[in-house]
Amino acid sequence: AAAPSTPPSSVQLAVIAGDGIGPEVVAEGLKVLRAAVEPTGTTVDTTEYDLGAKRWHATGETLPDSVLEEVRGADAILLGAVGDPGVPSGVLERGLLLKLRFELDHYVNLRPGKLFPGVRGPLAEPGDVDFVVVREGTEGPYTGNGGALRVGTPAEIATEVSVNTAFGVERVVRDAFARAQARPRKKLTLLHKHNVLTFAGHLWRRTVERVNADFPDVTADYAHVDAAMIYLVQDPSRFDVIVTDNLFGDIVTDLAAAVCGGIGLAASGNINPDRTAPSMFEPVHGSAPDIAGQGIADPTATALSVGMLLAHLGHADAAARVEAAVAADLLERGTAKRSTSQVGDALVARLG
Amino acid sequence: AAAPSTPPSSVQLAVIAGDGIGPEVVAEGLKVLRAAVEPTGTTVDTTEYDLGAKRWHATGETLPDSVLEEVRGADAILLGAVGDPGVPSGVLERGLLLKLRFELDHYVNLRPGKLFPGVRGPLAEPGDVDFVVVREGTEGPYTGNGGALRVGTPAEIATEVSVNTAFGVERVVRDAFARAQARPRKKLTLLHKHNVLTFAGHLWRRTVERVNADFPDVTADYAHVDAAMIYLVQDPSRFDVIVTDNLFGDIVTDLAAAVCGGIGLAASGNINPDRTAPSMFEPVHGSAPDIAGQGIADPTATALSVGMLLAHLGHADAAARVEAAVAADLLERGTAKRSTSQVGDALVARLG
Ligand SMILES: CC(C)[C@H](C(=O)O)[C@@H](O)C(=O)O
Ligand SMILES: CC(C)[C@H](C(=O)O)[C@@H](O)C(=O)O
Repeated sequence: AAAPSTPPSSVQLAVIAGDGIGPEVVAEGLKVLRAAVEPTGTTVDTTEYDLGAKRWHATGETLPDSVLEEVRGADAILLGAVGDPGVPSGVLERGLLLKLRFELDHYVNLRPGKLFPGVRGPLAEPGDVDFVVVREGTEGPYTGNGGALRVGTPAEIATEVSVNTAFGVERVVRDAFARAQARPRKKLTLLHKHNVLTFAGHLWRRTVERVNADFPDVTADYAHVDAAMIYLVQDPSRFDVIVTDNLFGDIVTDLAAAVCGGIGLAASGNINPDRTAPSMFEPVHGSAPDIAGQGIADPTATALSVGMLLAHLGHADAAARVEAAVAADLLERGTAKRSTSQVGDALVARLG
Repeated sequence: AAAPSTPPSSVQLAVIAGDGIGPEVVAEGLKVLRAAVEPTGTTVDTTEYDLGAKRWHATGETLPDSVLEEVRGADAILLGAVGDPGVPSGVLERGLLLKLRFELDHYVNLRPGKLFPGVRGPLAEPGDVDFVVVREGTEGPYTGNGGALRVGTPAEIATEVSVNTAFGVERVVRDAFARAQARPRKKLTLLHKHNVLTFAGHLWRRTVERVNADFPDVTADYAHVDAAMIYLVQDPSRFDVIVTDNLFGDIVTDLAAAVCGGIGLAASGNINPDRTAPSMFEPVHGSAPDIAGQGIADPTATALSVGMLLAHLGHADAAARVEAAVAADLLERGTAKRSTSQVGDALVARLG
């Protein structure tokens, strides 16, 4: 569904600041959000949820049902980052982050890959990089299907099942085509590995071909995910909209983030396009315990995620102002080191 | 098993030149092989097998059992590239290339990531890149397990199953540790995604920890495959030996190839370390129908694969000479465009 034409005049925001640098970048993100939208007469009401590693250590809880039900009532969710090295692998990922994505049907995991002017990435000749990855968010190898037998013995077997349904693939492909149609280049690239993962690959491929008929002005092509690695470092400007499955999307968007100047600038939206539940916006980076508490984390990815949040809620102008403020800040910033709050303050000043 | 201390004085080589640029690069690879090893008194006997797209178009065959049995008798296999756009996706991959890897138990898919002096890759500041990826070759999502139901209907479901066994994981991890131990830095990095693929991930992780006890001088660490994307473009010199599953390895090695100057330089060995069947050496690139027949394909990846073949057969000196010839050639070459045979001739001249 398109963004509402009359955006809500008050935003009920669920805030999951999380662990490590999460609360630090979220604080700046909220400053940016208010500075962008309050001048338009829209109020922002936040409810904070203490979820993440600290809560798990204290109570063993990841996402209690009652909290999930409360969060369902919000207009949107802003998440910082969750996790610390003391929590066993998978506990918070499956029990909190992926649980939110799955329960709230965030089937579009949207991750822009944009190299802003002035930003120095790792590539010698990056060209004009401005694409967006539409990563499927509720299927693929992320479903938790699979299992293990005879664990710890020489006869152990462990399986992971990638689940792909026509229902799940079609809805995300359709969303990706709509996004491609709204962009100047009107190009969509499916990334998969259909020469090896033939069952899932053929479903994805057929779906793209079929849905393309409803978007005849969009040019669709295909790349194997391994070849896409090469394209992303040799010629990233070739991409416009990329659509891919949950795991390929996870991998490809980290490479995209690196190409575009690093994980400190990578924004994301976990989107429920049908608006049956709140969408969730989060920087792609993690809780970075190594730099937590020092006030040096870059809140830019969170600010850009706030921009995506505003766009999703129909505040297109405010969203554009946030992105413009970030772009201007990045251009001016150069290689100067600034604190987390200095970046937030600079963005707020530009929005003021 | 280690390479034989007395290498065979005659090499029975099965040659699958394949399609597109395959025969062009293989011709140069064979010149290099002979120039490197014949002066040591070793003869090379080649048997050519016409397998690939042409044969499939003509006969519908991919890898007849009788051919497979013949190939089993060889000391090693040199493969160019197979495929053309007229063959349906998956037919030659599953029916020929992966069939060879699985039937001949190529459980170590070895792919060096080395940035040779003089080679300009896409990174602005690559640093000193010299690692090797040990990609598992007989399990993971490549097994062909999975299936599809109600194909072509809105109720379609397609699954792909990643199969990981203690047997399969341990043998490749052990091989990777042995390789790490033989290298100056003695470092091994497991790439996986154990925070999401918890069943398989924990098997890999536990196996690395356990096998590490037998290689106490090797330092083992871990990176999520998505984070590895970032490391590979921001700081590839951190890696020494990487061990990972079949699909992650496929993806990561194409990125490694790009970082190291492109797929035209990327060599690989599909190795059966137990020597129960011949190992197979092939450039990572495909058949590149767009440039086939023009004599412009770069045979360097094939030459480096020939070097790996020689090393595997115990011809360590000849292998080192091939790598040195390639290194010298790459340093001299600069950005000059040369034909396929010019590159081959230049390498032969250096070996002479
Ligand atoms: C933390 C992890 C579960 C998550 C994912 O794999 O999706 C992260 O890598 C991301 O990309 O948001
Ligand atoms: C052609 C394909 C089956 C193959 C693979 O996925 O292993 C190729 O990409 C490779 O890396 O050798």
